[in-house]
Amino acid sequence: MPRVHGFFYPKTATGRSSIVPEPPWYYSGDLLTIEYRTDPARVAELLPPPLQPAEHDPGAVALIWADWQSCSDSHEELLDPVRSQYKECFAVVRCSYQGRTYSRCVYIWVDKDFALVRGLHQGYPKKLGSIHLTRTHPFGPAPRLEPGARFGATLAAGDRRLAEAVVRLREPVDTNGFVNAHPMAHHRFLPSIEKGAGLALDELVESSAAAFEGGVPWAGEAELRLFDAPTEELAQLEVHELIGGYFRQVSVCWNGGTVLETGTSR
Amino acid sequence: MPRVHGFFYPKTATGRSSIVPEPPWYYSGDLLTIEYRTDPARVAELLPPPLQPAEHDPGAVALIWADWQSCSDSHEELLDPVRSQYKECFAVVRCSYQGRTYSRCVYIWVDKDFALVRGLHQGYPKKLGSIHLTRTHPFGPAPRLEPGARFGATLAAGDRRLAEAVVRLREPVDTNGFVNAHPMAHHRFLPSIEKGAGLALDELVESSAAAFEGGVPWAGEAELRLFDAPTEELAQLEVHELIGGYFRQVSVCWNGGTVLETGTSR
Amino acid sequence: MPRVHGFFYPKTATGRSSIVPEPPWYYSGDLLTIEYRTDPARVAELLPPPLQPAEHDPGAVALIWADWQSCSDSHEELLDPVRSQYKECFAVVRCSYQGRTYSRCVYIWVDKDFALVRGLHQGYPKKLGSIHLTRTHPFGPAPRLEPGARFGATLAAGDRRLAEAVVRLREPVDTNGFVNAHPMAHHRFLPSIEKGAGLALDELVESSAAAFEGGVPWAGEAELRLFDAPTEELAQLEVHELIGGYFRQVSVCWNGGTVLETGTSR
Amino acid sequence: MPRVHGFFYPKTATGRSSIVPEPPWYYSGDLLTIEYRTDPARVAELLPPPLQPAEHDPGAVALIWADWQSCSDSHEELLDPVRSQYKECFAVVRCSYQGRTYSRCVYIWVDKDFALVRGLHQGYPKKLGSIHLTRTHPFGPAPRLEPGARFGATLAAGDRRLAEAVVRLREPVDTNGFVNAHPMAHHRFLPSIEKGAGLALDELVESSAAAFEGGVPWAGEAELRLFDAPTEELAQLEVHELIGGYFRQVSVCWNGGTVLETGTSR
Repeated sequence: MPRVHGFFYPKTATGRSSIVPEPPWYYSGDLLTIEYRTDPARVAELLPPPLQPAEHDPGAVALIWADWQSCSDSHEELLDPVRSQYKECFAVVRCSYQGRTYSRCVYIWVDKDFALVRGLHQGYPKKLGSIHLTRTHPFGPAPRLEPGARFGATLAAGDRRLAEAVVRLREPVDTNGFVNAHPMAHHRFLPSIEKGAGLALDELVESSAAAFEGGVPWAGEAELRLFDAPTEELAQLEVHELIGGYFRQVSVCWNGGTVLETGTSR
Repeated sequence: MPRVHGFFYPKTATGRSSIVPEPPWYYSGDLLTIEYRTDPARVAELLPPPLQPAEHDPGAVALIWADWQSCSDSHEELLDPVRSQYKECFAVVRCSYQGRTYSRCVYIWVDKDFALVRGLHQGYPKKLGSIHLTRTHPFGPAPRLEPGARFGATLAAGDRRLAEAVVRLREPVDTNGFVNAHPMAHHRFLPSIEKGAGLALDELVESSAAAFEGGVPWAGEAELRLFDAPTEELAQLEVHELIGGYFRQVSVCWNGGTVLETGTSR
Repeated sequence: MPRVHGFFYPKTATGRSSIVPEPPWYYSGDLLTIEYRTDPARVAELLPPPLQPAEHDPGAVALIWADWQSCSDSHEELLDPVRSQYKECFAVVRCSYQGRTYSRCVYIWVDKDFALVRGLHQGYPKKLGSIHLTRTHPFGPAPRLEPGARFGATLAAGDRRLAEAVVRLREPVDTNGFVNAHPMAHHRFLPSIEKGAGLALDELVESSAAAFEGGVPWAGEAELRLFDAPTEELAQLEVHELIGGYFRQVSVCWNGGTVLETGTSR
Repeated sequence: MPRVHGFFYPKTATGRSSIVPEPPWYYSGDLLTIEYRTDPARVAELLPPPLQPAEHDPGAVALIWADWQSCSDSHEELLDPVRSQYKECFAVVRCSYQGRTYSRCVYIWVDKDFALVRGLHQGYPKKLGSIHLTRTHPFGPAPRLEPGARFGATLAAGDRRLAEAVVRLREPVDTNGFVNAHPMAHHRFLPSIEKGAGLALDELVESSAAAFEGGVPWAGEAELRLFDAPTEELAQLEVHELIGGYFRQVSVCWNGGTVLETGTSR
């Protein structure tokens, strides 16, 4: 029987210090999605074997801003919202594994530590950033969900702006895009603490939402500008052709995934 | 004709660097209000002459958390939301001036510089803080506007938590409280740069919203805890009796005020 | 006799909540200074009458990064360093008033609220920013004060990088530059709360350090890059010719100034 | 041959986006250490098997504040100091493994993402926090290294203050404490992404500095206050008896460690 408890660091006698509690994790949030096409070679070079480029539209990218309130089974984080609220911006591409299409997050920035660590558990390549997106509001200058409403979104990290976008809503549609619509195929890894010994953990995993609910998606025209930085490569996914912009309010429950392969990269 | 332009610092040839643009200023936001009674002497000692304690219920206090998106006439800030979004927590009491009842903000914390400076123009005693409040959401664990919905709110400054509150909604009502319902009576002042020379500016001003729109207020039960700190006195406004908690979505336009008196404090 | 006390907002019965205590204010800090020449017209357009461009070298600019620990007479802030430590980056030019040469800060960013408000009292056009500069250290990879030592410095605001610099030390010298070497001539102002009524306060003030101590300045080669932003004009002060870079450790006491004129801009 | 490169997330074609570069990692920094005794049972319950309490003085704790500038082999981070500078506060205890005494970090807070992730690689239980400590300075109100000099230090996380300390220097000594003086024995782990499947990685590792240089340590009297919080247990390590306070400037190189055991906790 273990002497210390907790889902993640730091483990203690009670487990209550863990930076993240055990899944399931619940989320309420708003998603602003920009889909576009880049050079398929730029996507392919981010897909380590055994992943392959997606068969159709292999240069499609979704850059997604999300404004979340999340919590554990206890829901207690919602009443101390510094522990619940965070924002993120992430770039998703598609890939193929054993004939099936997966989504894959290739870059992601969040603004809270619990979100960063939760992502490492899920295989999201998280860094901290400063993320902002316009919120809908029923009164005053902030936009309603209606034709012509405009939403702005920005991303910065390391005191440099990396992306900025504007979406102008046109109409309700059936979906908020196709790039982030598949199960996620992610690598979870940790380098060995011994120099030159490769990876201590190396897994290809799959995960999906355990539950999902969503409002009516709205689609519209999108503008997107990406900016280079010494330690960032988001701008390598150059915008060749904009597909569209989408706004949607959703809830998600995440409750674990499945290991597809281990040791692939070692 | 002035050689430099801009409503506030820094003035330049174009005026576009000003930390805040000229009013009118427009706001969309959510208000979580806790009203309670403290010792009326604690309120009275925050009211310099010629202000007097309010005739009725002179110990009433409103502690209000607000989650704003604000902009100038151009509305351009909404599309670069780091320049538009901010949160604040402020304590309001009532007072009497020439037989009329006014509201008066005695403490306020915001989390952006433009909001801090805007407040100095309006006579709000602003400091920076870390402010969080639960947001309503149509899906998932975050609350809907419905009976039993719970909202949490916290305030910290100087790396110390100063206040935390929970409101549990009960029902729609007619108003979100009575303490912050009057025109504001504020002092605008700046000490002389010459030592011992008193105030260089000393005004008692009145201002109100130039326009206002609001959704249906909800009322409910409130919990509130205040914590002391070496350079803060919010906790001196001890909670003797809770009156109620309120949630309301509103829009406001602010477009200047009126000087009531000058030189009162000099 | 006033019923409320405190040097600045918020005034209370005790005065201990004031965002800044009364001067004198004491500072220990490191200064990284880059001096360069820009188009003199860009400097001149930042000098409202009665200020005139400096007679000699009117296009000279100093961009200065400072890493401060500051306190009041009580020195108590030093033991709660979140109330003492801050960083700033500021642009200084020279000007002439009644035949005398003054320094004048035209842009400045700080990272704490007490520093921002202190600046408004002194007439510094402060905004919040994110400021970083390399610190000297006696051991390891950080630089010592010695030939070849390199210091980096960056400035960001609104999630955009505005400036970055590198200084490579060459030798001890007599001075850390000539641009920020004069008394400061600043405008202190506050717009009227009444629309269209101009300024409620409008002063041209002079202030200098009440006391100063400094280590041996080091000079070296400087690199400087400025970046544009929608609400910033630092980059208008284009780098035409680099003069030099300087590092110096100093202490300063500031204890008020003198009003030179009032009503000039009204 | 791998298609993607980089020591940690996100892996890319070039490797330059990795949130941390490959070790060795170099550090220059100042350490403020408070050593004290708590109930040995509170230490023992943080030591999972096969670790045992230290034979001598098993209730000894070191709470250490550090102000770092760190970099990789390229040293390039030092010139973009937002990527180099960070502060941390960490609690260290001692333990015994196979008859040898080890140090072990049981709680740690840092203020940058690269430091957090670097810690996960090393087995440090890192969270984000707000950390401040007084810095020594040759001029003005900040302290010199001399008898009577006072240093303050604070820690906050989740908008709550968790610890505050003051050290008053007395004299130069031979060491800055005995608790953090051994090789570190840490657990590196990652839960399985499959629910109920235990740990995917579970290692007990040892690591030490690959190189170390340090100035003369100073010792003095210490004050320390710990504060409770819903998701923190630092305050469980109650201060029963203060041992002393220390200030020292050091440099460290870290370049990997050794796996002692795997699968212990599974």
